Amino acid sequence: MDNAPRRVAVLGSTGSIGRQSLDVMRQLPGRFEVVALAAGRNAAELARQVREFRPAYAWAEAETAELGDAMKDTGTRWLAMDEMAAAPETDVLLVGTAGSAGLTPTLAALRLGRPVAIANKEVLVMAGHLVRRAMLEGGGQLRPVDSEHSAIWQCLWGEEDHAIRRIILTASGGAFRDFDRSGLAAVTPEQALNHPTWNMGRKITVDCASLMNKGMETIEAMWLFGVPMENVDVVLHRESIVHSLVEFSDGSVKAQLGLPDMRLPIQCALAYPERMPEPPSPRLDLGAIGSLHFGEPDVTRFPCLRLAMDAGRMGGTYPAAMAAADEVAVDRFLRREISFVDIPAVIETVLSKHASTTDPDLESVLAADGWARQAAVLPPKAVAGVAL
Amino acid sequence: MDNAPRRVAVLGSTGSIGRQSLDVMRQLPGRFEVVALAAGRNAAELARQVREFRPAYAWAEAETAELGDAMKDTGTRWLAMDEMAAAPETDVLLVGTAGSAGLTPTLAALRLGRPVAIANKEVLVMAGHLVRRAMLEGGGQLRPVDSEHSAIWQCLWGEEDHAIRRIILTASGGAFRDFDRSGLAAVTPEQALNHPTWNMGRKITVDCASLMNKGMETIEAMWLFGVPMENVDVVLHRESIVHSLVEFSDGSVKAQLGLPDMRLPIQCALAYPERMPEPPSPRLDLGAIGSLHFGEPDVTRFPCLRLAMDAGRMGGTYPAAMAAADEVAVDRFLRREISFVDIPAVIETVLSKHASTTDPDLESVLAADGWARQAAVLPPKAVAGVAL
Repeated sequence: MDNAPRRVAVLGSTGSIGRQSLDVMRQLPGRFEVVALAAGRNAAELARQVREFRPAYAWAEAETAELGDAMKDTGTRWLAMDEMAAAPETDVLLVGTAGSAGLTPTLAALRLGRPVAIANKEVLVMAGHLVRRAMLEGGGQLRPVDSEHSAIWQCLWGEEDHAIRRIILTASGGAFRDFDRSGLAAVTPEQALNHPTWNMGRKITVDCASLMNKGMETIEAMWLFGVPMENVDVVLHRESIVHSLVEFSDGSVKAQLGLPDMRLPIQCALAYPERMPEPPSPRLDLGAIGSLHFGEPDVTRFPCLRLAMDAGRMGGTYPAAMAAADEVAVDRFLRREISFVDIPAVIETVLSKHASTTDPDLESVLAADGWARQAAVLPPKAVAGVAL
Repeated sequence: MDNAPRRVAVLGSTGSIGRQSLDVMRQLPGRFEVVALAAGRNAAELARQVREFRPAYAWAEAETAELGDAMKDTGTRWLAMDEMAAAPETDVLLVGTAGSAGLTPTLAALRLGRPVAIANKEVLVMAGHLVRRAMLEGGGQLRPVDSEHSAIWQCLWGEEDHAIRRIILTASGGAFRDFDRSGLAAVTPEQALNHPTWNMGRKITVDCASLMNKGMETIEAMWLFGVPMENVDVVLHRESIVHSLVEFSDGSVKAQLGLPDMRLPIQCALAYPERMPEPPSPRLDLGAIGSLHFGEPDVTRFPCLRLAMDAGRMGGTYPAAMAAADEVAVDRFLRREISFVDIPAVIETVLSKHASTTDPDLESVLAADGWARQAAVLPPKAVAGVAL
C-alpha cells in the first residue's frame, strides 16, 4: 500500500459537498493533501480555506483583496479549473461544483486516466455519454459522491461489470409522498424547501420533493455504471437507510446501508480502494431502527420521475433539455409563478417540442440547454392548460 | 476467463445440500463436471446419481449390488473421501456431509490450496481453528454454502480483510420467537419440527427453533472470516430476506438479500468468481414485500445463542463440547425425555463441567466430543433441576 497522502483538487470547495470533503480530509491527517481549491462567488470562505489547507492552486469566480492576500501568504498560485484537473500534482479530482462548470475539468481528468469523485448531477445528466466516453478512452475512473450511487458502487466492488442485471435506486419519496393530487397542487415553496432528511440547496430540495432528483439519479446511474435505463429501477424507501441495491445475473441482491451522512460517500470516493476510519457519525443499529419500508413509486402523482427516465431512455439531448426545463420550472415555482404540479407540466411540454440529435457533442448539448430554458418560460396560462 | 468446466467432488451427494448442488450443476450444462460423488447410507440414490453424472469416483458407507452395477456401467471407481479431496481431477470440493466425516477431506483440500465449498456446520464449529490454519498454510479458500455466510462472503468481495469491523448475522428468530418461557417449556417435538421457511433435517430444525443454529453460525463466521467473536453480532429479522450484513471500518454496511433458496449460495460457491445465470427461483421484489423487520435477539428466552457465543469466545474444545451436548440434548428432546427449555440447561451443565486445552489437536477435539456426549446424558431429574 502506498502511504503517500493522496493529493486532491476540490472544485466547488465552498459548497456543501466541498466543505464536507474538506471536513473528511481534516479528520484524516496525513492521508490527504489538498492540492487545489476552486470556488464560485464565496471568495471570503475560499480565502479561509486557502489559509488552512495551503493548496498549491486556487481559483474563484471573483478575485478579492482578501483572497489575494491569503494566496500571497501561503504561496498559492491562481489556476483555472481545467488546469487543476490536468495538473501533475492532482491524484484525485473532486467535482463538487453545481451546473455545467464541472464538465470540462471532469473530461480533462478522465482523459488523463485519473479518478474523478463526482458529486455534480448536471454533468452526468446533460453529458453522461461524453463523460463515459472520456473515461473509457482515457482509462479514468468515475467515483460517485452521492449516497445512492456510492451505495451501488460499493456493491459492485469485486463484481464483474457484466454481472449487473438491475440497479435499484431507493427514494425517500420526498416531503409530499403521502399527498394526493389536490394536496400537491396547493404545495407552497416554504413546504417544498423543508426536506425531512438532508439539508441541501433550494433547487435540489424541490427536485427531491417532485422526484425529479431521483429521476436524474436514474440517468446518472446509466452513465456511471454503463447500464441501459431498462436495467434501472426505483423503489420507495422512506427511512433512507438502504442507500441503494444491485441485482446480479444470478439473482443475488446486494445493498449498502447506513445513516444519512454525506461524509461517508465522499470518504469512500477519496479513499478508494481503502476503507479509512469512519467519520464521527452515529453507527447503524438495525435492531433499534426496527423496520424498513419499501414500495412502488407513484409516477401518476410524481410524473417528474417518469419524465426523467423517459428522457434517459430517449438519450441524445433530451436529458439536457429536461434538466434545463426543470431548472426554469423550479425557479418559477419558487417565485410563485406556477404551482408545484405545473413543474412536470412545463417539463413535459418542453420535451414534447424538443428535437434531439443523435450522439450530440458538447455544443449541441449546451444549445439544447439554452433552447429548453427559453421554451420553459411559458406563460402561466399555457402551463395551467397542460393536462397531465 | 477459463471456460473449461469446473470439476466438482460432492461429499454428501444424497443429502439436501448435495442434491441441490447437483441440481445447480444440472441447470448449467457445460459449466461443471461432477468428478466424484460420496454418500452415506443412501446407496440407491447414489446409484441413480452415478448413472446420471458418470463421475470418475464414488464412495458410500455401504456398498450395494445396485451401486456396484451402476459404477461398473459408468466406469466409476471406488475412492475414499479424503482421496477425492486430494485427487488431481478435483477443482472444487463441496462438503455437504453432516457430522465430523467432512473434516479430514476439508483439511486435505485446503492444504492442497483448493477451494472448499463448505456446508458442514460441525466441521467449523468443532475444529474451525484447524480448518483455518490448513487454509492459511495451504493457500486454499473456504467458500460458505449457507445463506448467511454466503451473504457475508459476497459482501466481502473486493474488500480488504482488515476492513471488517463487524459481521451481523440475521436470524429469523425461530418458530417460537414470540413464545414466552412457559410456552417454550410446553413445546412439542412436532411443533419444533415445523420450520416456517426452510425444509431441513430434524436436528437442524430444532437448532433453528432454539437459536443454537444461529449460535453455531457465529462460531462458523469467526473461522470463515477470521474475526473474533467480539466482532460478530446477531440481529433478528423475521422475513429472512436480508441474509446477513457486514459493517466496515468506515461505518459503511453492506448486505446481501434474496428470497430463501439454497441454490443461490451453492451456485455462488461453485461458480466463484463468476456469477452464472440464476437458478429458476422467484426474484426479490422489495416493493411487493413492503417491510422488513429487525430486532434484538432475546438470549434470556433463547439461551442457546448465548451459550454458543460464549463457547466460541472461550475457544479450545468448548465449541466441540457444546455441539456434542446439543446433539444429545436435541435427541433427548425429540424422544420426549426432556423439554425444549431443558436443551440449553443440558448444554450449560455440560459446559460448566468441561475443561478445555489450549489450541487442541483433532484428537483432543474428538475426545471432548465423546466426553460431552457422555456428560449430556444426565438423568431427566438432574436436567430439570438446572435453573437458567
